[in-house]
Amino acid sequence: MINFCQFGAGRIGAIHARNIFGHPDARLQIVVDPDGAAAERLAACYGAVVASQVEALADRTINAVVIASSTDTHAGLVEAAARAGRAVFCEKPLDLDRRRAEACVAVARECGVPLMVGFNRRFDPNFARLEREIRAGRIGQPEILRITSYDPAPPTIEFVRRSGGIFRDMMIHDLDMACWLSGEEPVELFATASVMVDPAIGEAGDVDTAVVTLRMKSGALCQIANSRRAAYGYDQRIEVLGSKGGISAENVVESTVVFSGSEGVVSDKPLPFFLQRYAEAYRRELDHFITAVSSGAAPLVGAKEGIRALALADAAVESARIGQAVKL
Amino acid sequence: MINFCQFGAGRIGAIHARNIFGHPDARLQIVVDPDGAAAERLAACYGAVVASQVEALADRTINAVVIASSTDTHAGLVEAAARAGRAVFCEKPLDLDRRRAEACVAVARECGVPLMVGFNRRFDPNFARLEREIRAGRIGQPEILRITSYDPAPPTIEFVRRSGGIFRDMMIHDLDMACWLSGEEPVELFATASVMVDPAIGEAGDVDTAVVTLRMKSGALCQIANSRRAAYGYDQRIEVLGSKGGISAENVVESTVVFSGSEGVVSDKPLPFFLQRYAEAYRRELDHFITAVSSGAAPLVGAKEGIRALALADAAVESARIGQAVKL
Amino acid sequence: MINFCQFGAGRIGAIHARNIFGHPDARLQIVVDPDGAAAERLAACYGAVVASQVEALADRTINAVVIASSTDTHAGLVEAAARAGRAVFCEKPLDLDRRRAEACVAVARECGVPLMVGFNRRFDPNFARLEREIRAGRIGQPEILRITSYDPAPPTIEFVRRSGGIFRDMMIHDLDMACWLSGEEPVELFATASVMVDPAIGEAGDVDTAVVTLRMKSGALCQIANSRRAAYGYDQRIEVLGSKGGISAENVVESTVVFSGSEGVVSDKPLPFFLQRYAEAYRRELDHFITAVSSGAAPLVGAKEGIRALALADAAVESARIGQAVKL
Amino acid sequence: MINFCQFGAGRIGAIHARNIFGHPDARLQIVVDPDGAAAERLAACYGAVVASQVEALADRTINAVVIASSTDTHAGLVEAAARAGRAVFCEKPLDLDRRRAEACVAVARECGVPLMVGFNRRFDPNFARLEREIRAGRIGQPEILRITSYDPAPPTIEFVRRSGGIFRDMMIHDLDMACWLSGEEPVELFATASVMVDPAIGEAGDVDTAVVTLRMKSGALCQIANSRRAAYGYDQRIEVLGSKGGISAENVVESTVVFSGSEGVVSDKPLPFFLQRYAEAYRRELDHFITAVSSGAAPLVGAKEGIRALALADAAVESARIGQAVKL
Repeated sequence: MINFCQFGAGRIGAIHARNIFGHPDARLQIVVDPDGAAAERLAACYGAVVASQVEALADRTINAVVIASSTDTHAGLVEAAARAGRAVFCEKPLDLDRRRAEACVAVARECGVPLMVGFNRRFDPNFARLEREIRAGRIGQPEILRITSYDPAPPTIEFVRRSGGIFRDMMIHDLDMACWLSGEEPVELFATASVMVDPAIGEAGDVDTAVVTLRMKSGALCQIANSRRAAYGYDQRIEVLGSKGGISAENVVESTVVFSGSEGVVSDKPLPFFLQRYAEAYRRELDHFITAVSSGAAPLVGAKEGIRALALADAAVESARIGQAVKL
Repeated sequence: MINFCQFGAGRIGAIHARNIFGHPDARLQIVVDPDGAAAERLAACYGAVVASQVEALADRTINAVVIASSTDTHAGLVEAAARAGRAVFCEKPLDLDRRRAEACVAVARECGVPLMVGFNRRFDPNFARLEREIRAGRIGQPEILRITSYDPAPPTIEFVRRSGGIFRDMMIHDLDMACWLSGEEPVELFATASVMVDPAIGEAGDVDTAVVTLRMKSGALCQIANSRRAAYGYDQRIEVLGSKGGISAENVVESTVVFSGSEGVVSDKPLPFFLQRYAEAYRRELDHFITAVSSGAAPLVGAKEGIRALALADAAVESARIGQAVKL
Repeated sequence: MINFCQFGAGRIGAIHARNIFGHPDARLQIVVDPDGAAAERLAACYGAVVASQVEALADRTINAVVIASSTDTHAGLVEAAARAGRAVFCEKPLDLDRRRAEACVAVARECGVPLMVGFNRRFDPNFARLEREIRAGRIGQPEILRITSYDPAPPTIEFVRRSGGIFRDMMIHDLDMACWLSGEEPVELFATASVMVDPAIGEAGDVDTAVVTLRMKSGALCQIANSRRAAYGYDQRIEVLGSKGGISAENVVESTVVFSGSEGVVSDKPLPFFLQRYAEAYRRELDHFITAVSSGAAPLVGAKEGIRALALADAAVESARIGQAVKL
Repeated sequence: MINFCQFGAGRIGAIHARNIFGHPDARLQIVVDPDGAAAERLAACYGAVVASQVEALADRTINAVVIASSTDTHAGLVEAAARAGRAVFCEKPLDLDRRRAEACVAVARECGVPLMVGFNRRFDPNFARLEREIRAGRIGQPEILRITSYDPAPPTIEFVRRSGGIFRDMMIHDLDMACWLSGEEPVELFATASVMVDPAIGEAGDVDTAVVTLRMKSGALCQIANSRRAAYGYDQRIEVLGSKGGISAENVVESTVVFSGSEGVVSDKPLPFFLQRYAEAYRRELDHFITAVSSGAAPLVGAKEGIRALALADAAVESARIGQAVKL
């Protein structure tokens, strides 16, 4: 039985808390959140108690922590939890500043605690299947990867301001997927971006429409497209061309119902957003962490992947800024 | 070079005339139609002349006739053309009365001329491919056949009155497909039907919504559904379950364009009606007839198939009338 | 909080037990099964205890029972539980003998306890969505219903022998769906069936391939097809043609991954069998029962529907036997 | 009636000759090709005669020429035909050298003859429909365009050597589509490319796998991917995200037949290559040219578009060479 303390009782925290609760080998024991009422509500749902950060980390019955608090607290909590000897699951990104992220990773390494970073998409059953087929050689050598990731609607301007920008907040997932699916490292990156959705996003210093090209070590090429708005929902697709064929993971839709009428043949839209689209991914991600902690194995997505994705996001910011390709 | 005389300058006649014209080994020489203006128009398009039936059949340069005139003239023209020694392509049905149809078939046989009946769907590339896969054993032994055939909108009441009814006019195609695809003969038939689309169809003595169940010799079962109205267009699908798998031919759609918006993911409708859906089938059907006549081979769909389909349509009329299954 | 006693610790019992356990307002308290070891295993998973039937029904803390034992025990358990004043959820069928089923229903009614019958497909999100769209008038008046229900592989011959036959064991679901989706009662039924899959099924007195045609009161027509074997998995589809369009619920597949290679474009198969395909339906079905019991409302699928489906299955058996349509 | 002289009796020449022949308002009168036997064969099919270039251009009955000869002869023939006062349809590219292309365009302009360049994809019914929907505002303002264009298999090394390279030979079509579909001009281009398919292509100085990013004037972004090999056939898809939704044109497949077996649900592959995929596009393209010449209207795809696409291909070559984005 793994006893959990969770930092953060917001939207993503609610997902992790329910998944801990639903796992036969895990127990949510403590919830910590500066918003005491939110912490109380979440704790009440799953039979946990509310505590301060200090109390929580001092509790010797706790084996593992989930860090689902605001981004600017991640690195500090990773270090505090690591020093207390707890296994750490931290939502992405570790920090918006890569050096700060590297520093907290170093602490976790010194303390010898497992550290997993929340790249949930690797645990989506469809993308996981895609990766297994590629690794099994079904399409031969991957040559062209294409990742589509469009949000249904832009976040609030407040969110945009503290998000770190589209490359660090949103494309970071796709940058991780590109490395994971191709099985190799990028050597060159070109990014270009626009404000097409909302001028206020531009005024906040960010962009809302962005594309990135990666050249991988083998010469394989990767194209990523991000938009903050798709009128039809959350568009999450990946396709890969290889020497022996192509493979893709298409959108997950709301139902299999199809209506045929005078206006055409109408299928359901993709699931609306990440809470629905990646519900199963979040569950499997936590299962993996619990299994890793229980068995003493290293989690599959750790500090190395978290830092690499941050470095690529930084490179994309730089490339978009100077309007030129960046060597990695 | 096969020189053609065509009887009938209406909608289906226009299709056949164009296909004769487009064929490198055929020539449309004479058009016959009681509506002289229609005959002139069609003849003018393709460099043919207009003649009377007597003149046309007396013309010794004619090798073959296409009979695309009104149904009540089919049997008489088959006989006249056969007696003149011409190869005959006759639109379905040979006659609404099976005995009359059998009589004209007997004349064609005596005269030793090839006789092909227009079951165009056998020449549709999708259904033809379905048949080839089944014959090649891809699904093993066929066990359940399901045929969907819905018109986009009901015909005029005048047409309904002289059509011979839904079973002889519309389902006759599906009854032929059931025998062709299963590769065997039916031993039992059950039909039931309703007036759901337009009470005037009922007043004209016909039905507009009909289903038939066939039991084949091997025990394989077949379900056919017909409706005179599908708001989304001409619905023409077939699926077959076999011992090793299932196979289907889906609708042919207007384009591959897909729109995704707030109302869903919208694909194009099926092609609107038989002129569009079976354009290629009509072309291949005539190609087959021309090849058969040129080479002296018997056409693949002849008198036997035409009479069998009529007999099954008669059985369906009877079954629907008495409300009971009919042995064949 | 609803305290449950469950009869039956087999395959379907395991599903219900897990769903009770996972529900925030329910608790699995007692498991009863003649196979003591199976009962112990299941009880241990979910913190329940094992008891005899007599003990279980005497326990006054129990509010509701789930009957997931062998079919021949259903009616007796319904009566015993009803007399003990417990709300009853009973797997279909209530009994293979309609009169026995009616007798137990009468007892439940006298005792004034809620009785729900396990027509799980009504709770499948896709079929439920289909029904909502039809009720909302999206396709206008339903005219032709077509239900496909193929198992991936035949059951054991032992199962076949005590199953009550394909119509009572398998098609009973489709007969219920036909009434539910059309929103009306059938007035005529025609069934025909074959042994195509395995001669041993015929020797056991059953068939493995069956089709049924229903005529509904309005004249709407329904075609059902059942097979005990589809090489590609569990095929569960429904399509309905209405006056304003068509609507269908397609198969649920294993993933959205699509491979394109020299052999074609390969998508995933349907989910393998009912445990996977209807996992969500079973969960929602139990949710509905718990909500009904908690709130005092009558469950949506009760004795009336259970008896009607049995009567239709009996009519199908009779129709197939005499080779003729049966009035209802 | 438009009388045609055609230069070139090869693969693409055969398509144009057949389309001229099949058009009611056009006649193929003369075929010119250095390979006399090929010219004779093609001329014989369609009732044309063979002549030398000088004879052909001196023939005053000729209204229009089709230039489907080898690329290095295009510009010279455009000039000669223009000076003879003939309307000119020229296969893409006008010339591999942009200045040479501009020179021949200037001659055509001075001579006042219509000049159409063979960007056949604009006439594909699916892509044409996509363009109409975008122009009609269905997706609002286009924001992200993605063009996939993979050949089924690489050409011969001889072809590669004289092709002008992947950007001028293959991607030129996609560069034209990007401008046409977005309805605007690109302001920046980034290209990167690899040899993944065959080292011999690299040795011949070309690449076989290439991606390009275009930034359009409005800020809209475009991603193009090209490969010389897709094991599943000719992959030709376009998708566009706009402010009100997304729209795509998917591959055209060989048939609508779907097989379901133990290995999955198998649909047909895309049509094998451009001869099949764009058969209808070639027909409509020539229809458009004939209509333009007959009516005196300017063809929709002329010198301006031909030169622009060449300029973009040149920019792509340059960008790939220097590894940096290029301003346009």
